[in-house]
Amino acid sequence: MIQLLVIVIVISILALILAGILARSILAQDEGTPQMKEVASAIRIGAEAFIKRQYSTIAILAILLAIVIFAVYALTGQMPTAITTAAAFIVGATCSALAGVIGMTVAVRANVRTAAAAQTSAAKALETSFRGGAISGLIIVAMSLLGVSLTFYALGADPQHTPFIIVGFGFGASFVALFAQLGGGIYTKAADVGADLVGKVEAGIPEDDVRNPAVVADLVGDNVGDCAGRGADLFESTAAENIGAMIIGVALFPVFGMNGVLFPLVMCAFGLIASMIGILVVRGSEDAHPMTSLNRGYYVTAILAAILLYVAVSLLLNGNTWFYFAGLAGIVLSVLFLLVTYYYTDHNFRPVKEIADASETGAATNIITGFSVGLETTGIPAILIGAALLFAYWCGTMSGIPSGGIYATAVATIGMLSTCAYVLAMATFGPIADNAGGIVEMSQAPESVRNRMDKLDAAGNTTKALTKGYAIGSAALAVFLLFNAYMSEISNLLTQAGRSAFSVVNLASVPVFVGALLGAMLVFLFASFAIRAVSKTAQSVIEAVRIQFKDPAIMAGTRKPDYAAVIDITTKGALKNMVIPGVLVVAFPVIIGYLLKYEALAGFLMVATIAGILLALILNNGGGAWDNAKKFIESGAHGGKGSDAHKAAVVGDTIGDPFKDTAGPSLHVLIKLLSTLTLVLAPLFI
Amino acid sequence: MIQLLVIVIVISILALILAGILARSILAQDEGTPQMKEVASAIRIGAEAFIKRQYSTIAILAILLAIVIFAVYALTGQMPTAITTAAAFIVGATCSALAGVIGMTVAVRANVRTAAAAQTSAAKALETSFRGGAISGLIIVAMSLLGVSLTFYALGADPQHTPFIIVGFGFGASFVALFAQLGGGIYTKAADVGADLVGKVEAGIPEDDVRNPAVVADLVGDNVGDCAGRGADLFESTAAENIGAMIIGVALFPVFGMNGVLFPLVMCAFGLIASMIGILVVRGSEDAHPMTSLNRGYYVTAILAAILLYVAVSLLLNGNTWFYFAGLAGIVLSVLFLLVTYYYTDHNFRPVKEIADASETGAATNIITGFSVGLETTGIPAILIGAALLFAYWCGTMSGIPSGGIYATAVATIGMLSTCAYVLAMATFGPIADNAGGIVEMSQAPESVRNRMDKLDAAGNTTKALTKGYAIGSAALAVFLLFNAYMSEISNLLTQAGRSAFSVVNLASVPVFVGALLGAMLVFLFASFAIRAVSKTAQSVIEAVRIQFKDPAIMAGTRKPDYAAVIDITTKGALKNMVIPGVLVVAFPVIIGYLLKYEALAGFLMVATIAGILLALILNNGGGAWDNAKKFIESGAHGGKGSDAHKAAVVGDTIGDPFKDTAGPSLHVLIKLLSTLTLVLAPLFI
Repeated sequence: MIQLLVIVIVISILALILAGILARSILAQDEGTPQMKEVASAIRIGAEAFIKRQYSTIAILAILLAIVIFAVYALTGQMPTAITTAAAFIVGATCSALAGVIGMTVAVRANVRTAAAAQTSAAKALETSFRGGAISGLIIVAMSLLGVSLTFYALGADPQHTPFIIVGFGFGASFVALFAQLGGGIYTKAADVGADLVGKVEAGIPEDDVRNPAVVADLVGDNVGDCAGRGADLFESTAAENIGAMIIGVALFPVFGMNGVLFPLVMCAFGLIASMIGILVVRGSEDAHPMTSLNRGYYVTAILAAILLYVAVSLLLNGNTWFYFAGLAGIVLSVLFLLVTYYYTDHNFRPVKEIADASETGAATNIITGFSVGLETTGIPAILIGAALLFAYWCGTMSGIPSGGIYATAVATIGMLSTCAYVLAMATFGPIADNAGGIVEMSQAPESVRNRMDKLDAAGNTTKALTKGYAIGSAALAVFLLFNAYMSEISNLLTQAGRSAFSVVNLASVPVFVGALLGAMLVFLFASFAIRAVSKTAQSVIEAVRIQFKDPAIMAGTRKPDYAAVIDITTKGALKNMVIPGVLVVAFPVIIGYLLKYEALAGFLMVATIAGILLALILNNGGGAWDNAKKFIESGAHGGKGSDAHKAAVVGDTIGDPFKDTAGPSLHVLIKLLSTLTLVLAPLFI
Repeated sequence: MIQLLVIVIVISILALILAGILARSILAQDEGTPQMKEVASAIRIGAEAFIKRQYSTIAILAILLAIVIFAVYALTGQMPTAITTAAAFIVGATCSALAGVIGMTVAVRANVRTAAAAQTSAAKALETSFRGGAISGLIIVAMSLLGVSLTFYALGADPQHTPFIIVGFGFGASFVALFAQLGGGIYTKAADVGADLVGKVEAGIPEDDVRNPAVVADLVGDNVGDCAGRGADLFESTAAENIGAMIIGVALFPVFGMNGVLFPLVMCAFGLIASMIGILVVRGSEDAHPMTSLNRGYYVTAILAAILLYVAVSLLLNGNTWFYFAGLAGIVLSVLFLLVTYYYTDHNFRPVKEIADASETGAATNIITGFSVGLETTGIPAILIGAALLFAYWCGTMSGIPSGGIYATAVATIGMLSTCAYVLAMATFGPIADNAGGIVEMSQAPESVRNRMDKLDAAGNTTKALTKGYAIGSAALAVFLLFNAYMSEISNLLTQAGRSAFSVVNLASVPVFVGALLGAMLVFLFASFAIRAVSKTAQSVIEAVRIQFKDPAIMAGTRKPDYAAVIDITTKGALKNMVIPGVLVVAFPVIIGYLLKYEALAGFLMVATIAGILLALILNNGGGAWDNAKKFIESGAHGGKGSDAHKAAVVGDTIGDPFKDTAGPSLHVLIKLLSTLTLVLAPLFI
């Protein structure tokens, strides 16, 4: 057992060392012209101020919840569990917060260096921004592995009981991730929508124009939403999936012993090796499309992960090839998910073209078509997830091991997750490139530099869309694990109380059906609140900008607008508006579970997950397709910039903003939060 | 037994007689000016041509499906059932088609008479249009009752077996209703969106302007979509709910005997009495708001239904008051649903006001806010449905009758359905008033007539929104019955084959979870296709109109545009585009059921229903709120007609059109179709 944990810890430390090396080399790079430095410093200060205030709010909420968790266990007479679970919650929450902060800290330094590199070389700019992303990816996955392994060890490393206690770690991580993603998402899109509406639409000045007082807030938003938010999101994904898989491993303890419980951690560490090599393979080029290089790195990672999976199955799961096939299905699923997302959001294919065509008859047809595309994108992904689950389950039943079916779905999840660090690098690369583009624009760099950055920015948009697809696919698999973990946990509690185990969630029973209905409803209601929060906060941004625009000196470009005032208003709005939806999704399932009890809550959880996956697909892909339809028109199609089709496409893009960057990504976190929440608070629902 | 059927049949015949009297009095009314007659005749001819072609297409599909049904039973060696089920399917399909045709036939005659009445009296106009709607309501409910009772009698009236066979009747009705609602919905909104975009937006001419060649197609659309489509929809609702409730009654045969099986039909007939009185209570007034009078009629109907429910429970269910409370919950639920829908779609309340406010900053914020309102509207209705189901179920368990819980939910459904004929009258009143408004506009009647019609038209819009809320609420309850009927049917088949009964749909099993995921996905995919069909068909309408607009004589108003050409193009487009989504929702569940078997299909069915209810709420209420935000601005708020806010609100309204009149209402039918389909084809899924 110790050897396995040592392997995991050593690999994690190696990843941290690589991250350190990358960070050193990036920090040593040139920071560009004085204007670039000035813009970058404004972004950094704004982002750091937001994060500080955001995490203060989250800390208060987390401490309150830790007290509730402690009370739930203490009042049901389980004092030791009360302490360990509450402590694990706090540790998980802290790690998640740290993951977000690190991701953002790196990003606000890599952005200006990317901009500086773009002055001379496209290849260098790609490498700088991608490695900036890679630092986050490596640190987050390594921290998640270290956090789970050390907590497991610290809590006694009892293979049959400890996995249930470290669930608190996962819940803490999800809780922070929800608020980080939601608050950051509201911030980034309120600033973006506000800046666009009042700048492009009302005042008629270009995007990222220095005269627009909201433009720095917009660039801050990329960092706090996409970097810090997504960092916390993927941190908790890794943690929650590992913990879920370990709990499933408990059921197989008689067969595989400790190996089955620790397999998820070991394979995840192996995946980290694959990702490290994949990251090092990415090399920029002056001529080739950045995506070519990024894709090559991804395929290298996936192939290495497939090979290492074979090693892990041979070492830990008695070389039972059925589990290998299940894990492979997970890796294949992740590749297919990226391809499907690419199809739906790239302008070379039917969906985005259709939206661009529809823009010719105005905003209404653009939006109707875009919404229809968004709804359509649920089709293939749902079939893929279903097929992967059924195939993995079938592999498990073929493995000849009793109740191997569910464990095989866990192995598939781990397979999908093995490329996580690389995917996270791609995800964080996007906002860094985006930010660098903004810095180049605002520092009024020459045309050639802008052109280099535009290409990189476009690639960044693609990777942002792709990684959202990956995040939702892996969330879908992870949550299925967490259901089963929830059922195991409830069964434990029931059998301790001398009642029969919990093995069936009967959707035909009235309370379960009602629970399921309310679960799906919660997802829609949450999305409503998240979208409204953006619209409300954007409204305050618009008002603040309008006041400044009344100053002719600002419009003439002779006086610098007050960027900090808009940053402050956006910060306040985002923090205020994240609390209600966040508290709603924590409180509502607890109430339902308390009133309708554990079986109905399981129905709630499962159907909320289904609705959450599908709605997130609609919002992410629909938003991505609108965005790229606009970019496609800007590249010259349908009359290009300034045409009526372009105006219509801008409306579609604006609507897509809160869909794809606020509500959609928050739903990824939401569905995992529901699972970890119900697991941790299980004693309330008996 | 015979006495009960006689009561049902006599009441149904009374309703038909009342409908005949109302029809006679309406047909005797004045048809107005020659221009009115001319416009009305163009609408009538267009609507009749569409219906003829639409039902020819549907007939072919229905015959193919009847052959499949026959084959399924014949090949599993159940020859008598093969014949009776296929025959019941054909009878149900025919009745449903007839219901649609009757609804439309009345509407295309009542519209011009309403327009004529508006020349002199607002009260007379209200009475004419509402009674026109009432004719449809009475005929449809009476036909549904007659159809189910006579089929029950003809198929042997065996209380324990016949209910399962007459399911074919319900399936036939749903099948036709799906295509009627979908095809009609595509037609009406393609014409509406096309006419608006090319007329109002491109050419800058007012709504319903005679120079717009698409304007007659738009008015035809109200009849084929709202009247024929909704008629078929509510016909199959009544039929499916009665049959579902009878099947549940079979389980209680040992307690109540035939009374329990026939209770749904008897109470539905009693509800018809209540509705007849409610209809007769509605009296127009020159000054009061039309909604005051319509609401009075509705409350009279609901109170009478509550009293008659007590009589029915006393006579047939041993006076067990717990069942009375359950039924009352259904009636209360229907009232609450109307109030909630009113809150979300009327301009006096926060949601619509919020959308109107957001229109000030443009189309993008109008749409973001509207979408957020749409998502929000899932909240209270889901809680109401959940509470009603739980309360009814609890009443049933308190009744002291074994397995009375599910039967009590059936009684609640019947309670909700008892006001159906009145609600249907309100639903059909809407498009008649809308059409009359169009006729008044196109026949260039004086200002005072237009003002009278505007008030009536606004009331019609409200009732259309309200009845959609009612339809979705009753569908939710009905489908829960149909699930249980499906489980009974599968259990019968399993026990015949010597296997154990089907009592659990375990969502924690992998195939059931995958089924559930795919069920929810189907709903979104169907909505995508339905919305895209509108956009595609509208595109052809726009192109056809643009060609005619090139003729300066048409634009000058000296030459009459070729209305028939646009009607023809819309017809072709709607019929072409309804086939793929329609076939999809029939074929997909059959494939899933065949591959994953009956339990996974049950998960599919239930979660598809949940997703369908919630998505329909989003689409119906979101669309209704956008529509009324536009109307609110047109009434003078936020700068009134022609302001920038108005332009933004027009975009929102256009997007809402296919949401609320094509995809949303088709989803009501879809979820019931899935239930009747799985019931009828059950032998395939064992």
